[in-house]
Formats: sequence, C-alpha cells, structure tokens
Amino acid sequence: MTSAPSCSVGLDIGGANLKVYSEHGGEIVYFPFWKEWQRLGEVLAGIREQHQVKRAGTVITAELSDAFSSKTDALLYIEKTLKETFDEVFFLNLDGELKQGMDNPLNFAASNWVASVRFLGEDFDEFIFADMGSTTTDIIPFKGRMLAGKSDYERLKRRELLYFGMLRTPVFYVLPEFDGVPLSSEYFSITADAMRILGLVDGDSYTCETPDGRGKSVDECMQRLARALCCDVEELGREKTVRLAEAVKEEMVRRIALTFRQKSQEFGINLVLGCGIGEALLKEAAELAELEFTAISSMYGEASHLFPAFAMWKLVDGLVDAE
Amino acid sequence: MTSAPSCSVGLDIGGANLKVYSEHGGEIVYFPFWKEWQRLGEVLAGIREQHQVKRAGTVITAELSDAFSSKTDALLYIEKTLKETFDEVFFLNLDGELKQGMDNPLNFAASNWVASVRFLGEDFDEFIFADMGSTTTDIIPFKGRMLAGKSDYERLKRRELLYFGMLRTPVFYVLPEFDGVPLSSEYFSITADAMRILGLVDGDSYTCETPDGRGKSVDECMQRLARALCCDVEELGREKTVRLAEAVKEEMVRRIALTFRQKSQEFGINLVLGCGIGEALLKEAAELAELEFTAISSMYGEASHLFPAFAMWKLVDGLVDAE
Repeated sequence: MTSAPSCSVGLDIGGANLKVYSEHGGEIVYFPFWKEWQRLGEVLAGIREQHQVKRAGTVITAELSDAFSSKTDALLYIEKTLKETFDEVFFLNLDGELKQGMDNPLNFAASNWVASVRFLGEDFDEFIFADMGSTTTDIIPFKGRMLAGKSDYERLKRRELLYFGMLRTPVFYVLPEFDGVPLSSEYFSITADAMRILGLVDGDSYTCETPDGRGKSVDECMQRLARALCCDVEELGREKTVRLAEAVKEEMVRRIALTFRQKSQEFGINLVLGCGIGEALLKEAAELAELEFTAISSMYGEASHLFPAFAMWKLVDGLVDAE
Repeated sequence: MTSAPSCSVGLDIGGANLKVYSEHGGEIVYFPFWKEWQRLGEVLAGIREQHQVKRAGTVITAELSDAFSSKTDALLYIEKTLKETFDEVFFLNLDGELKQGMDNPLNFAASNWVASVRFLGEDFDEFIFADMGSTTTDIIPFKGRMLAGKSDYERLKRRELLYFGMLRTPVFYVLPEFDGVPLSSEYFSITADAMRILGLVDGDSYTCETPDGRGKSVDECMQRLARALCCDVEELGREKTVRLAEAVKEEMVRRIALTFRQKSQEFGINLVLGCGIGEALLKEAAELAELEFTAISSMYGEASHLFPAFAMWKLVDGLVDAE
C-alpha cells in the first residue's frame, strides 16, 4: 500500500478470526486465538504496518475462547497487547461507549454486535440486526435502543446468540438426526463442508481448518459429511450426502427464522438487516419468517463480511474528524 | 513381567484407545488413532514384547476415524501392521467368525461388540449386552443369536450404537439445552468433565486429553463445563455448574434407558449385562427401565473395562487349547 498514512483501523478480535477495516479496505485473517494467542502482538503489528495506522478502534469476542481460564484474564491480555501495538486504542463497551481503557473488563466482552448496531442505529429507527459469521449468528432487535441481552449467556437464553455459523460448527450441533438416524459426536464434519457441497461457500471462503486436515474440494467435503453418519460416501450414497448437506442448511435457516419471528412479534419490528458471510441464509430465513430483508452488502458492499470491524472504523474515524 | 512366554493377546483397536488383554492382565492405552496412526506398528510391537506374545486376536473400530479417507484403506493398513507385528493374527468379523485375513475388509469394521456378545452367548441364552466406553455406548440384544444391525450406520439408526460415552463426548451432543439455554457449539467441555465433577471418573480414569489442554482437577473441569454455556464458573455459579454436570449424566442415563426399554419390548428380553467404564450409568439406566442388571465386573472383575479385548483373548486362547 503506497497511500499516505491514515489514522484509524477498526478491529474485531474474534476467537477464530481477526477482522480488520481501514480506508484501505477490509480483510479477514484466520487467527485461532485459542492456540495462537501468544502471536497476537506480532499479527497486530503486521496489521498496523500494512494499514499504516496508529489508532485502533476495537471490539472483542476472543475472550470466550479457552486460551485463558477466565474471560477477564483474556480481556486484560488483549487490552495490554493492543496498547503496546498502537499509539491510541479505543474499546467499545456493551453500553455502546468508546473507552481508552477497560475500567470493567467484562463490560467489554462479546461486544462486536454493539459496534454494528450502534452504527446502523444512526440511519435506521428500528430493525432486527443479524450477522451470520463462521461460528455464530447474532440476532439483535433495535427500536430506538438495543433490546438484546448483554452477556453471551443472556443472549444464548434469549436466542439472540445462535451458536452456529457458516463454517466452524460441527454438523451434529445443527442437525442431531437425519432421516431418523442420530449423527456421530465425533468432530468429523463442520457446516463449511455442507455449505461447500451446496455451493454457498467456495474453496477460498472455507477459511478455517478442515476437521480431518485434508483438502476443501467438494469430494473431500462429501467424505467428511458422510462420516458424520459413520459412513464412507459410497456407503451413504452421493445423493443422500447432498440431501444431508441440504438438511443442515435448512435446519439453520429454520432456527434463524424462528428467532426472527419471535423477535418481530415481541418488539413489533418487521425489517431485518443482514450481514456476514451467511447473508444469503439470513435472507432465506427472513423470507421464511415473512419479514422484510435488506442485505447490508447492498449498502456497504464487501464490508458486510466484517461489519463490526467496518463499524468500528467508522465510529473511530468519526472521532478523529471531531477532534 | 517375568513369567514364561504366553501365546495370545486379545486386542481391541479403537479410534481413541488400544485395549489389550493377555494372561498378564489388561490395559487401556490412550492412542488417538486419527493423529498417531503411523505409530501403530511401534505401539503394537511394545505390546507384543510387554505381554510376551506371538499371537493376537483382534477386533477393530479405528477404521471409522478420519485418519484414512475410506474405512477399507484404514482396515487394510491395520491388517498389514498387525501381520507385520505378530506371528499369527486372528480377526473377528461381523458374523462372529475368526479369520486369518480380511477377505472382505468392511465385514471386519466396527466389530468389537461381536467379540463380547459371542463370548457371553456361550453362558447366557438371552440378554441385552451394553458396553459404555469413553466415546460410545453399544447396546446389543441377544436371543440365541445377535439381533443387532451390522454397520455403524444401521446401529445408529436402531439406537444400538449411542454415540456418547463417559469421557470424549462434547457435552452439547448429550445436552443441547440446560434450563432453557442452548449450549455453545465450541469444543469447550466433554462428558469426562461432568463425570469428574460428579465423582464418577477420577483424575487417572480421565485418560483422554482435556479440550483446553489444562488439567483434570475438579476445578478445571468446572471451568470447562461452565464455558459450555459461555460462562466463567463465577458467572454461572458453582452450584449451577454442578447441576449442569448432573443434567448431562441424567440425559445419558435417560437415553440409554429408552433404548433398553425399547429393545426389551421388541425382543422380550429382561436382563442387561453391562460393562465398560460406564457400568455404573448402565446400571442406573437398567433400573430406570425396570430391567434386571448384572455387572460384567461382578463376573470378570476389571476386564469389564476392556471386555472386547478380554473376550478376544478368551476366544483366541480357546483356539490355542484346541490345537
């Protein structure tokens, strides 16, 4: 990158990915925090140089990974690493406030959806925000203010955090049974395999590791998915393996639609704003729930795939202008 | 071991453990085939020397692991490795026949329960055999002959293979929700954590790796289990974490009891013969299903924990006597 140094970068430090946005554009860096957390400083320094920035605005969800025995320890480590890397760091808390340090670390946990919703709330009065990423799906009602639970636990309970996504979820979490046959509990196959078979994810978008360490071709995904029923592909049959992939997807759509409908009824909101690599599934779910749907990609292009980082960049960039 | 060389060893080559029995007694060797399969020959050679045997009788379930892209490839590799290690090898097929080579490899897949049931069938006319290990629970009706499906797929379908066990199963497979809150799909906690908290497994019996690479103390198990609901222990509370462990166990018992009752009704069998490290849970399930229960440990002591290997030793030892 040859342009002049810019001030700000938006960061979303997740458990499996670092999402980065600056005026140079965005990138999703596969970074399995639970095993590579010691390398965070090095990776962030690379981002600082590549994007030529001195200031970072950050949201964090990586504290949930089991790299540290408590979320607070993880948050303090991330805070320290960020402060060592950038001249100035802003952290967004669960109340939507930008802070230069973590006065109460747990109030900065699992905060990435707050950035997206705070940003969208400047243009929209009421909406159900939905962000389907590699691992989870956030569903946040907004009507003048954010109406979601704050902790991951509260959001799980209220179905505002659905713990499945387009890539990393073991298929048996989404689909305990197929055609009356319970799936194996081994880590044989993940949603990325099903999505790849259905053409909803391509080889390059399958950014996480494969469960068996083999490749990301459709045939290899079929092998893994058949294994979820303790079968070789020849044993289960290719047609039935594809049907299994479809069933995985349909169950994800069904569960999302259920929450959409419930939140729509509870709060009287009819518009879903959807982003993330699972935008297409969110659209299907909104249709199933008979709600309006606007793709965030139709407004912000590729930034849809890393919207919290984009929103953080916008929020922090605004700060710079104001000074 | 200083006794004179003995002829035979019984082996149960599983996906996560090698179970070994000879006249010197039994042992369970944690051996994650999916990542250490290249070391199989070396480990088997160690067993050959330690037990001072030249002949092996083998059952296999490791072919299901995703070390190889097809089960046949895995079975042929295991056959070759065994033949290179021992002077004489007997393989038990799904028809209960001992063979010196795999004429049809897939007929030797997932055969460990066959050894146990064939052996028990010599003394009992009718029973429901149940073996709860680290990873799975086999439930096999016998009435003069084995009445179970043959492939893993068929047994999954008929609930004769319940894909959970005492140690390695992600808790969310057993318990998708707790108190109305869906569990996370991350590999945060396994059944061993719940069993350890409840005192049903001790630190030494927790033979598999922990999901987070940390220790096996009750406190560390509590941390992992709370994390399954996206919480630190302090956040979920110790009492609720223990209740979660109990709920995991109770759901396992409930599902096993359901199959016991169904098989009992279908085939008119009232006796359960239970073995494996989960014998205590099988007993509870039999009581819940109002069936008679006999612990295989009450007949064969510690061999209950590795009964297919013990049964193979008995079957092959018999062969030796007959010659």
